[in-house]
Amino acid sequence: MSDLIARRNRLLGTGAPLFYQEPVNIVRGEGVWLFDDTGQKYLDLYNNVPCVGHCHPHVVEAMHQQAGTLNVHNRYLHEGVLDYAERITSVHAATIKSVVFTCTGTEANEVALSMARLATGGRGIICSDSAYHGNSAEVAKLNKVKQTTENNPEIRAIPYPQSYRPLQDDLSSSELTELYLAKVQAAIDDFKTSNIPLAGMLVCPILANEGVPDIPDNFMVRAAQMVRKAGGLFIADEVQAGFCRTGNWWGYETKGFVPDIATMGKPMGNGMPLAGVVASTEIVNAFRKGKRYFNTFSSTPLQAAAGMAVIDVIESENLRENVAQVGDYLRKELAKLQDRCPPMAEIRGHGLYIGMEWVGDRNTKTPDAKNAIAYVNRLREKGFLIGQAGDLGNVLKVRPPLVFQQEHADLFLTAFEETIGEIHG
Amino acid sequence: MSDLIARRNRLLGTGAPLFYQEPVNIVRGEGVWLFDDTGQKYLDLYNNVPCVGHCHPHVVEAMHQQAGTLNVHNRYLHEGVLDYAERITSVHAATIKSVVFTCTGTEANEVALSMARLATGGRGIICSDSAYHGNSAEVAKLNKVKQTTENNPEIRAIPYPQSYRPLQDDLSSSELTELYLAKVQAAIDDFKTSNIPLAGMLVCPILANEGVPDIPDNFMVRAAQMVRKAGGLFIADEVQAGFCRTGNWWGYETKGFVPDIATMGKPMGNGMPLAGVVASTEIVNAFRKGKRYFNTFSSTPLQAAAGMAVIDVIESENLRENVAQVGDYLRKELAKLQDRCPPMAEIRGHGLYIGMEWVGDRNTKTPDAKNAIAYVNRLREKGFLIGQAGDLGNVLKVRPPLVFQQEHADLFLTAFEETIGEIHG
Repeated sequence: MSDLIARRNRLLGTGAPLFYQEPVNIVRGEGVWLFDDTGQKYLDLYNNVPCVGHCHPHVVEAMHQQAGTLNVHNRYLHEGVLDYAERITSVHAATIKSVVFTCTGTEANEVALSMARLATGGRGIICSDSAYHGNSAEVAKLNKVKQTTENNPEIRAIPYPQSYRPLQDDLSSSELTELYLAKVQAAIDDFKTSNIPLAGMLVCPILANEGVPDIPDNFMVRAAQMVRKAGGLFIADEVQAGFCRTGNWWGYETKGFVPDIATMGKPMGNGMPLAGVVASTEIVNAFRKGKRYFNTFSSTPLQAAAGMAVIDVIESENLRENVAQVGDYLRKELAKLQDRCPPMAEIRGHGLYIGMEWVGDRNTKTPDAKNAIAYVNRLREKGFLIGQAGDLGNVLKVRPPLVFQQEHADLFLTAFEETIGEIHG
Repeated sequence: MSDLIARRNRLLGTGAPLFYQEPVNIVRGEGVWLFDDTGQKYLDLYNNVPCVGHCHPHVVEAMHQQAGTLNVHNRYLHEGVLDYAERITSVHAATIKSVVFTCTGTEANEVALSMARLATGGRGIICSDSAYHGNSAEVAKLNKVKQTTENNPEIRAIPYPQSYRPLQDDLSSSELTELYLAKVQAAIDDFKTSNIPLAGMLVCPILANEGVPDIPDNFMVRAAQMVRKAGGLFIADEVQAGFCRTGNWWGYETKGFVPDIATMGKPMGNGMPLAGVVASTEIVNAFRKGKRYFNTFSSTPLQAAAGMAVIDVIESENLRENVAQVGDYLRKELAKLQDRCPPMAEIRGHGLYIGMEWVGDRNTKTPDAKNAIAYVNRLREKGFLIGQAGDLGNVLKVRPPLVFQQEHADLFLTAFEETIGEIHG
């Protein structure tokens, strides 16, 4: 193991990110299971990319078939690409009609920013102060703004809306909504004062990287209205929230609004690099007119085949319904363990994106990332792979493939209960 | 056909780029051949992504095998990924030891810019004034600087070195080298005056998008020395020049230098989205230390399997040697047609990247993009797919898969000669 890590540091550079105190050497995957080089089995409660399950045969065969037939760039006509464009827009809200494909979620968010700017003529972008939207220089301007000292004149970040550590205590939910919305309005006003026309607001509808907080009621709906009133477009980053993760097809449905632009990524091709941006045809046309965008590896027959197969499986295996049902079950059962587990202060999320707020003291709400990490590592030893998230690093993240069943939830609950016993007695 | 184009405009947006006056509806590919929906066959003299040939069975099977076994992100250990990292660095110069994988060439150039900046502590980047390095906002600052009115304080562009339309007439090749190098020095000096420390210089070693000009002798070697002397790093964009395209493994070998950082893309996975950045371990470590870079779809077992299979085929089918031999043959035979074809003023390039300068008048050297396009479209009608390039759009571009043989060159030469007869009598 240490030889392998040394080799990795030499070849990929020291500090290439690696999970778990004791990293895992995964050699095979199947459904919700991963297997290491010693044959040990791990229940995968982390990966959202292989959304229809690791190595799903329908996706594997669709890719094989297409890779053996044609895989070429998109300056030729190809019906498979258009069929997939039709299919992916058809599972979105009715106003969404056109798509720009990319390879990664980062690229999708790059395109979305450019699209909003070209369609509105504005430049200013509002985001959450603890977000992560990708790794390119332009998109990274929106990442974790709270922690940065850089001044990006075209970016304004708002404190992310939440009820657990609200901006002000003792407010009703609707008062809290107004408080956070006032921050959006302040950002709009500040852009105006600075003579920077608004282009839009970009957020993950469920604030996944922020730690899937309970968002005060109606915040997203009202924020979208405010942004549009000010001439901007509302962009939903569905890279994590999309593809039935929340029990709805899209995170924006879960939050009751329709975005002007939505970006998609991770689960879209079950591991095939595939991402994209959807919007009305008018907005996409504004982008095409303003920018001659071309991406060699995107909009290819191979991407389309993988993407199409993923939707096939989601629909034929009723995965949206499965996510809603198993997610509810898992959250409810976890809640039963809260009394025995002092650090587990709140269980949140939607569908199969579950966040558990981990604290040292429930009264003072002191975040306890260290104990959260201890849980992650203890569970990994037992053969259960979860992760952590949140702007304070103290949110346990449970986000298995969408094919995760109640029997898998039960296996995890047993291991989780054992871990509570081991750590808290 | 017009129905399909209308459908494409509706789904992908009007203006999504499309080749040829009469676009082609490609449904199948095999080796150097593409087939449309009517069964018509096209000799592919354009595509560099399917470098070992369309749908090469060894690559298709390697991807199938891996997609059915495991395809997951890279925060676990995986020997296949490390084996590929070892293999891809082993075909580079001896100083190159480590790699950061990405999905697209754009992402590779993003990483390279960031890497040079983190390793040097500088910010300033020198580029050519007619380059294309990718589609993200940060990388696009380096694109076609000559044509832009934007002022990017961290970018200085130099007129790209060439002998066909040199900055000054009547100079010897070595005098011309000095003239262009003086532009590099001026950029270095200007950054110094502006208090912007130099990070490096990023160029394609063969200036592919500039139109593969004949570069005055020794320019790249000397420019790299100057940049290093000034504290910067020299970055070779090998996205087009790499993977045996020039008859050497890398464009930098063809130009006789070793870069500090090299970026790779298009041909790397024969169509699988796969790209990356190589450098010394020290430089990669500086990047890892300065930036927690993570890319969901990159450094995956699937990428590694595709990349490994591509190198297998290049080596087992002796494609580097094939490229050198068939490329020389094709350039020599094309030169024999120059007298009968007044616009074909110069035939340039390396290996199987051939550029033909197209002019209205050989004395005044007036570029003739319109006639160049007429050749591209006429050849497409005959079943031969080529393209055009160059900062003036007047360079015919012939850049077939590396498996292109002399018999294919002969088919093209016959069609090309016919086209000359049809257009020039």
